[in-house]
Amino acid sequence: GKTFKVAVLPGDGIGPEVMAEALRVLDAVESKYAVKFERTHANVGGAGIDLEGKALPETTVNICKASDAILFGSVGGPKWESLPPDEQPERGALLPLRKIFGLYANLRPAIIFPSLTGASSLKEEVIAGGFNVLVIRELTGGIYFSQPKGIDGVGRDRVGVDTMRYSVPEIERITHVAFQAARKRGKKVCSIDKANVLSTSVLWREVVIGIAKEYPDVELTHMYVDNAAMQLVKWPKQFDVILCENMFGDILSDEAAMLTGSLGMLPSASLAEGTFGMYEPSGGSAPDIAGQGIANPIAQILSMGMMLKFSFAMVDAADAIDNAVAKVLDQGYRTRDIYQNKPGEKLVNTKEMGAAIIAAL
Amino acid sequence: GKTFKVAVLPGDGIGPEVMAEALRVLDAVESKYAVKFERTHANVGGAGIDLEGKALPETTVNICKASDAILFGSVGGPKWESLPPDEQPERGALLPLRKIFGLYANLRPAIIFPSLTGASSLKEEVIAGGFNVLVIRELTGGIYFSQPKGIDGVGRDRVGVDTMRYSVPEIERITHVAFQAARKRGKKVCSIDKANVLSTSVLWREVVIGIAKEYPDVELTHMYVDNAAMQLVKWPKQFDVILCENMFGDILSDEAAMLTGSLGMLPSASLAEGTFGMYEPSGGSAPDIAGQGIANPIAQILSMGMMLKFSFAMVDAADAIDNAVAKVLDQGYRTRDIYQNKPGEKLVNTKEMGAAIIAAL
Ligand SMILES: CC(C)[C@H](C(=O)O)[C@@H](O)C(=O)O
Ligand SMILES: CC(C)[C@H](C(=O)O)[C@@H](O)C(=O)O
Repeated sequence: GKTFKVAVLPGDGIGPEVMAEALRVLDAVESKYAVKFERTHANVGGAGIDLEGKALPETTVNICKASDAILFGSVGGPKWESLPPDEQPERGALLPLRKIFGLYANLRPAIIFPSLTGASSLKEEVIAGGFNVLVIRELTGGIYFSQPKGIDGVGRDRVGVDTMRYSVPEIERITHVAFQAARKRGKKVCSIDKANVLSTSVLWREVVIGIAKEYPDVELTHMYVDNAAMQLVKWPKQFDVILCENMFGDILSDEAAMLTGSLGMLPSASLAEGTFGMYEPSGGSAPDIAGQGIANPIAQILSMGMMLKFSFAMVDAADAIDNAVAKVLDQGYRTRDIYQNKPGEKLVNTKEMGAAIIAAL
Repeated sequence: GKTFKVAVLPGDGIGPEVMAEALRVLDAVESKYAVKFERTHANVGGAGIDLEGKALPETTVNICKASDAILFGSVGGPKWESLPPDEQPERGALLPLRKIFGLYANLRPAIIFPSLTGASSLKEEVIAGGFNVLVIRELTGGIYFSQPKGIDGVGRDRVGVDTMRYSVPEIERITHVAFQAARKRGKKVCSIDKANVLSTSVLWREVVIGIAKEYPDVELTHMYVDNAAMQLVKWPKQFDVILCENMFGDILSDEAAMLTGSLGMLPSASLAEGTFGMYEPSGGSAPDIAGQGIANPIAQILSMGMMLKFSFAMVDAADAIDNAVAKVLDQGYRTRDIYQNKPGEKLVNTKEMGAAIIAAL
């Protein structure tokens, strides 16, 4: 059997609790498939700050470098909120990790699980039968990382500047990711831009149109970002794969995730060229419920499943995890965040949910 | 009585039809209050392109310059969609108008009219009793207008660049608009930024905090733009005034407007320093229903009401218009876009809706 090296970064809040369940599911995968996962734990986020002085300690970077993939929990909490923004757990850990490891492709599925449609704030008639949108966000370019960026001058003469820059190759590679993903799903890509205002968007649209020619089986449409923010609310089912630059993807992927009503259920993957990737739940560290053993581990478990699929090419195992999650939901297992007090529902805690998923595997 | 000069720019699609009703209501205002409105019509958008060769002809600019306010219809349509982006009706007319007239403060109310809650794609329990959010968007700065902006290089070496820049005075003046508006409403300002990533946002937040000290009666909170896109969906009632830079405001104001389900009902104002302003419906030119006399004129009429309030200090007349609209809705008058086939509803066309509002005045 093969051996894969996984850097395990549980982080803060509910991170360690839900990570523990994901790792138990990983044990179950090991015993079912001929594979070993060598895990090395490292500190990140608030835990990194408290124990090693910064959100992304050197040791952690080195452990990640020596690994085949990063399984990331979640970071942040009130304790570190008064730090300068770029030292805070989220920004201070995530942005450097993305840059150091070239994690240019962020995949964020926004899925309504049919048994959980009630949790969405959208009307039943809008989401009947669920929806399944995959937001693909460029993650290492654009206004997040381009120079110049900063504040110049003093007092009332200060001026703040950020730069949004995209090169053709940067747009090409993320576009390929979107079309390849669409090919395996609904065969539609909707590319988001603001080509009526932004030069980067004019280039973006041109390059996307060029790449699309290599995928004649996939339908390409374009939508302005403001309209996309509307259309997601109006009729999310119109979308299959949504392709965005970094900042638009940040906004729209969160909007889409919230529309599902199941934020605590959604995984994400951030992929580099090759097979390296980082996998993390879409939701936050939920400090308000940390330490109580009641958090929902599903997003973390599904993120681990994405790791199996994208970094280790274990598509069967990944599918098995997805199916196991769907099964326990159908069986009525609910952590508190998704409990609706309906007949057939069984309220469970973090460990019980993990155990149910392992049993269903 | 006073005389005010109004530049009337009906534009394309349903623009001229709904503008006709707004002007009939303006007649009614004239006959009720001691005031005259001298109106000069001018071409804009597709009509400008077709009749004078560009989306914003010189004549139109001069007519606007000679006026006290601009009443704007809506622009755009399939006929002009293959033009280069910056010649198209929307961009080619709106962006220069904003810049030439210094329309730095965009006010976009997102209101659910209690009688129309059914039109929202949000669940009844989320919007019960309606909601009333005012998005205040900075409209002449940021990534829309800052330099450098453009595409350099050739072929695969091309690089697109946009610049987001804000100075302290630019942030100060829009912040004052937000706090002054909040004072007259729910006394809360939520300032949107991305201070964990953008330098402009760090400056934005600092300046907003400084200005807030002058308004101790108004509560200030801050929210990252990605979180705001989620919170709007989750619980729109948490917001009173939302303060945004240009691009974030473009996205969030459209999302908020769509959440109401009454896009065709929402007015907007774009204000310069002093009393000059431009007033236009939030919705588009709806080319699919143009010429049929069935469009909803309410957004145009409410936009005219905002003109009375902000440019002509006719607060009573503006309130009377708002009340007249609420009244006809309560009476069951519905254009096709808001008709839900419920008992008590009367399906009317554009002219009948205008007449009903005049009757209710
Ligand atoms: C924490 C922040 C820097 C980050 C981002 O904006 O990318 C977060 O919002 C995300 O989407 O992962
Ligand atoms: C047409 C476009 C340039 C414009 C904008 O982005 O400002 C529009 O979306 C708006 O919100 O008025």
